[in-house]
Amino acid sequence: MKKKPPFHQRILLLREKLDRLPFDTLWVLQPENRRYLSGFKATDGQLTESSGSLLISKDSLILVTDSRYTTEAENEAPDFDVITFNKGFNESFPQIVSKLGTRVLGFDENHLTWGVHRELAKKFRKLSPPVRLAPVKNLVEGMRELKDQEEIHSMTAAADLMSEILTIVIKKLRPGKTEKEIAWEIEGLAREGGADGLAFPSIVASGPNSALPHAVPTDRRIRAKEPITFDVGVKIDGYSCDMTRTVFLGSATPKFKKIYKTVREAQLAALKQIRPGVKSTVPDSTARRIIRNAGFGDYFGHSLGHGVGLATHEGPRLGPEKPVELKQGMVVTDEPGIYIPGLGGVRLEEMVLIEKDGPRILTRDNHFYDF
Amino acid sequence: MKKKPPFHQRILLLREKLDRLPFDTLWVLQPENRRYLSGFKATDGQLTESSGSLLISKDSLILVTDSRYTTEAENEAPDFDVITFNKGFNESFPQIVSKLGTRVLGFDENHLTWGVHRELAKKFRKLSPPVRLAPVKNLVEGMRELKDQEEIHSMTAAADLMSEILTIVIKKLRPGKTEKEIAWEIEGLAREGGADGLAFPSIVASGPNSALPHAVPTDRRIRAKEPITFDVGVKIDGYSCDMTRTVFLGSATPKFKKIYKTVREAQLAALKQIRPGVKSTVPDSTARRIIRNAGFGDYFGHSLGHGVGLATHEGPRLGPEKPVELKQGMVVTDEPGIYIPGLGGVRLEEMVLIEKDGPRILTRDNHFYDF
Repeated sequence: MKKKPPFHQRILLLREKLDRLPFDTLWVLQPENRRYLSGFKATDGQLTESSGSLLISKDSLILVTDSRYTTEAENEAPDFDVITFNKGFNESFPQIVSKLGTRVLGFDENHLTWGVHRELAKKFRKLSPPVRLAPVKNLVEGMRELKDQEEIHSMTAAADLMSEILTIVIKKLRPGKTEKEIAWEIEGLAREGGADGLAFPSIVASGPNSALPHAVPTDRRIRAKEPITFDVGVKIDGYSCDMTRTVFLGSATPKFKKIYKTVREAQLAALKQIRPGVKSTVPDSTARRIIRNAGFGDYFGHSLGHGVGLATHEGPRLGPEKPVELKQGMVVTDEPGIYIPGLGGVRLEEMVLIEKDGPRILTRDNHFYDF
Repeated sequence: MKKKPPFHQRILLLREKLDRLPFDTLWVLQPENRRYLSGFKATDGQLTESSGSLLISKDSLILVTDSRYTTEAENEAPDFDVITFNKGFNESFPQIVSKLGTRVLGFDENHLTWGVHRELAKKFRKLSPPVRLAPVKNLVEGMRELKDQEEIHSMTAAADLMSEILTIVIKKLRPGKTEKEIAWEIEGLAREGGADGLAFPSIVASGPNSALPHAVPTDRRIRAKEPITFDVGVKIDGYSCDMTRTVFLGSATPKFKKIYKTVREAQLAALKQIRPGVKSTVPDSTARRIIRNAGFGDYFGHSLGHGVGLATHEGPRLGPEKPVELKQGMVVTDEPGIYIPGLGGVRLEEMVLIEKDGPRILTRDNHFYDF
């Protein structure tokens, strides 16, 4: 039996919140928020090209789109009334909002551009009655931070597949293969494995390239003894996995053994603190202290981790700033790294579900060294 | 001999414009604009995750980024001084701007979100002297519309490769293959052919799916006689190709022959008007009239075409609204379509360079039927 889609429940929860918020209609533009609330799967090709948006009020559920997406919208978001606009968006949208009886429209301040806001505000003022725009921040994003059973199921499947793929790829590593060839193998295995696709472009970074936290695969051929960092993920049912391993062909140099040991120690110490009720800054500061004490304090520039879900990077952040409370049902990464420019780096990343009693690692605990 | 990079020339041109604009420093956030002016190739993983931005004044060229991208930025944008910020962006950026002596900072109104604008405006007001934010629209985008020789070279290479790939894939089409399998073949050939990657996710849409202008490849198996639409592109040196063909295995039905003939006629008639000095609305209205006169007026919902370059979709638009003058050096698509919901559709797309004497088709003139 097919399970009831979760959208109804999410809309109920959102409408409860609407009662206490300073707007009567929520306008949802952000692609993952849109999918989370309606099931509409389309992505936006470019920032300036929306494939649609939602209007959610106490009585109405509207999906506004253009003719390219009408059929998909109707199929994927059956709870929503699909309105296809024909003229330009800036012409049609104010009329649609007006007909809905909206007086104050909440908009996602982190997704609407300054220019579109100005144009719409101008048009909204001329409506009768006028419509006011009210900024909204992290409303749906906040809901998305707490995963339900179905979401955890999808993310576990994504983590399982990614772990399997990485095992295959690491087993087949040979000196002389290029980073690009290896990245391509990963992508092929993701397709064969039934993923929607990659969650993000794979990072396969060898030797000095592994010192670039965001390296793009190159034609460089991998060699023995040097670090090779894989930061990879697939999507299943729209949900991302995100994991990182650094491996060595043959033995690592003493310097890299020390770096690796430090990163792994930082990761495991942080992991223990990824549990309900802990401030999100605590695991980061634990990992950072260990790395600093080992003499690598200048070489860990990024945050410890981030939430994962429909987006590969979402809330909560596990960094040195803006503490929030970690909660049961969150899925976050634990990914310290040390990067020595010109030499190379090590990053290790697990994707972790926060359960009542503590962390549960979703990525498989494989390909770690015990230096 | 390696040619001199074009960035110097572009910066000169931009600085000339700065003299006549109401700001002293331009802030460039948009990834393609950033690459166009500096050579920095990084993309932004998500809208809320910038990999860097440029500050361009009369005397300074600054690339602001975080530690994940410092090395790439230094390598790829040697004309720019790279500043790596350590605290959060909202904390560091105002200080950097202040040190530069900026009084009015021009920002891309179609890329900065309302929320970030509000936060920065607040911080900028407190600086001494305060910095004012001034919206900028289509400044760099306008420069990008006119391609130089090197850009045309890259786009021709992308179009050549894509045309070759499509020829291979169409030759190997057999009933029973799934849309996804075919899309995957295309991606593999793009990699083997030396592309940076796909310009956008391939559309392979068969039978009724071809009625969806933005179809995502499915597990549907292709069959004889039905339309199969390929809307595909690769990137080379960062530049996109964008082309569409609709093919039939065996013969098409009379209905689809009529649809195809109409689309092709519309495309060729529009093509003649893609030349310097013509208004951008003219080719669209020509194609639209032919489609309407053939009785399919309700089934051509999108615009005729768009500019192509570092972005797959950029200026100028070839649609029914907002006329601009077509100019020598622009590269645009010519892509009418007819989509009958539930039945199927036909779209044909050429990528066209506007030369002094008229259009030059960059995509290869292949896989068209002469019904």
